[in-house]
Parts: sequence; structure tokens; C-alpha cells
Amino acid sequence: VITLYDCATAPSPRRARILLAEKGVPHATVQVDLRGGEQFGEAFRAVNPLCTVPALRLEDGRVLTDNAAIIAWAEAAYPEPPLLGTTPLEKAEVASWQWRVEFEGLIAVAEALRNGSPAMAGRALPGPVGYEQIPALAERGRARIGHFLDALEQQLATKDFVAGAAFSVADITAVVTVDFARAVKVRPDEQRHPHLLRWRERMGERPSMAA
Amino acid sequence: VITLYDCATAPSPRRARILLAEKGVPHATVQVDLRGGEQFGEAFRAVNPLCTVPALRLEDGRVLTDNAAIIAWAEAAYPEPPLLGTTPLEKAEVASWQWRVEFEGLIAVAEALRNGSPAMAGRALPGPVGYEQIPALAERGRARIGHFLDALEQQLATKDFVAGAAFSVADITAVVTVDFARAVKVRPDEQRHPHLLRWRERMGERPSMAA
Repeated sequence: VITLYDCATAPSPRRARILLAEKGVPHATVQVDLRGGEQFGEAFRAVNPLCTVPALRLEDGRVLTDNAAIIAWAEAAYPEPPLLGTTPLEKAEVASWQWRVEFEGLIAVAEALRNGSPAMAGRALPGPVGYEQIPALAERGRARIGHFLDALEQQLATKDFVAGAAFSVADITAVVTVDFARAVKVRPDEQRHPHLLRWRERMGERPSMAA
Repeated sequence: VITLYDCATAPSPRRARILLAEKGVPHATVQVDLRGGEQFGEAFRAVNPLCTVPALRLEDGRVLTDNAAIIAWAEAAYPEPPLLGTTPLEKAEVASWQWRVEFEGLIAVAEALRNGSPAMAGRALPGPVGYEQIPALAERGRARIGHFLDALEQQLATKDFVAGAAFSVADITAVVTVDFARAVKVRPDEQRHPHLLRWRERMGERPSMAA
């Protein structure tokens, strides 16, 4: 059986849950208590030495230790429906937007939260190494989220999905990022981001998004 | 004809040059003067509004605006030799290491350089928006590079290539990252990173690396 190491309240494993639901990959789920620090314990380190979720244990016992691995594996092992594009140009668009949403959006939200929340002191980056918070980075993260929402709005003003004409992993990452931004009290604005908000509403109609 | 918008001295377009050489993609090259700010001029903004290189203009005039897009397109349009893995598990390993090298390595070097170099004042992130330098982020970047080199050493102690048994995009990104780290005076250490140094030497024997 395939097992997803998950944390119901965290954004990164939510990406994997939605992906597995879209692909229809049958799997068991194990919750990891991130607030209680279970990811740093010996038992979870034996699963994923990087101390992060999601991690996906395959039938043969091999463990995929991040979303990048899980997405690439799922697209190859469960090709339908395709979530990384079909033609060379579509694949390029999906890869580009997936990268932009991660780098300009998701990382910016994480920077804002992890460098600004007292609960994250000494934990400014995920993983086994502890890094001190940098308050200026929290502030820069918030500014970047604003620019990211504007870029997403511009794209969705003429496209139905983040990477163009079809639903893809870039939509999954963008939904998770936009929702995660609420944790630092940033939300799309009705006047400034109308297309983004309509896209988010359409995304909410997909059963996978409740995963 | 396919055209690469390049800058001979910058790390990001070097990734694209090596990739195109490995794939044998015939193309013309246009140099963009990053030090002179040509990427912010009207002419280059018409090519890539993100104001970054590499950008790759395809035969039909469409422009790929980042390495993520260029890699995905090249793998689909020029499948041989495969650089993103072949089996689902290989694809997962390549995607995971590509992501780790970018996030733990390349971004860390960029943080160290862009937040610490007087020449980069007001340009702490690439792209059209100017961000002020954060000195503590330069320092954190240097610490992260050290952890990244250790992680790479650990992987290369038992593997011939970064993502396992075959050459992949993760090797390209890792070569560029390790070489780029010299810009902030960080180099692998003969005692601490012997396998990494032997891998780097083997990589240097590939004709693509001179691209």
C-alpha cells in the first residue's frame, strides 16, 4: 500500500493530497504532528531524514521526500489525467508557472510567516537545521506576496487556468499558496484581483480541493 | 531559428547553455548586458517581461522565460538523451534533486551574493521589482551553502551522479551552483567534500560544460 505522511493543517502536504486525489491514487494516510515536533523524532527521521512532509512511501518501501518527487512520480506512474501538460509548449508553461508560484508565491508566504511568527522562532526554514528569524525577510515576503497576486491576476485575466487552457499542478500550488497567505493576513482583493477570485471559486468546485 | 538570450558571465543562462549542448539543440545566441542593465530596457522587456535570462525564443516566436520552461520543453521536444529520468522513480529522483539543488544551493548562493555585494544594492532579487539588501540574509545564505555542499557530498559518496545512476539536469544545476559559489568565496573542501570534488572533475570532462 502507498502511504502519505501528512499534516492536515500544513500547506505543503495539502499539495500532495490534492494531487493524489486528482490522479486517483489509492493510499493510506499517516498524520505527523508538526506542532509537537514529531518530524524531528527518530521514528519520522527514519522515514524522511529531511524532517518534512509530505513524504510518500511507495509499495516497494521507497520514500519520496518532497512534492517535486511526488509530482514527477505520479505523472509517470498515473499519466491520466495529465497534470504537467501534454505538448512540449504546454509542459513548458506548466513548469514555468509551477516554478513561479513556488518561488514568487509559496516561498514568499513561508518567509513572511516563518520569519514573523513567534511560534516559529529558530525555525525560519523547514528541515533539520534551525535558522533564526530575520524580521526584514518577513516584511519582504509580504511585499512579494502582493506582487505575486498581481501577476496571477494578470495571467488569469486571459486564461482559465494558471498555466493556460488546462488544469495543472500549477493550479494546485496556486490554490494552496493563495489560501496559505491567509496565515499572514493577506487575501486577494475584490477590486484588484477579480479574475483570481473567480478562478479560486471555480477551483473550489473540484472535489480534490477538499482532500 | 531558435534563439537563446544569454549572458556569458551569469549562472542562470549557463544552465540553459549546458542543457542545449547536452541535447544538441541548434540555436543562435544573443548576449544581454546584465551589468549595463539591458534586461530592464524596452527592447528586452518585449522579449521577456520578467527581465531575466535565460530566455529562449522558439521557431514560432514563442518565448520560454526561465530555466524551468526551457528544461521541460527541451525534454519533450528533444527526448534524447533523457535528462529528467526514464522510469517513474528516476523521474522522482531527478525532480527531487533538481528542487533541492535550486532551493538549498542555488538560491542560497544568490542570497549570499545579492544581499552582500555593494554592486547589487537595491537588486536583492532578480526581476522587474527592486528589493533592498538584507545583510542577515547574506549571512544565512553562506551558512546554507555549507549545509548544501555537505548534503551533496553525502549523496555523491554512494552515487555517480547527483540524482543517482545517470547524468541529469540535477548535475547541470549542481555544477553551476558549485561554481557560482566561488562568487561568494565558498568552495568545496578537499578533506570534507572529496566525492563532490571528484564528481566535479568528471563533469568537467563533458564537452557541454564548456558551453
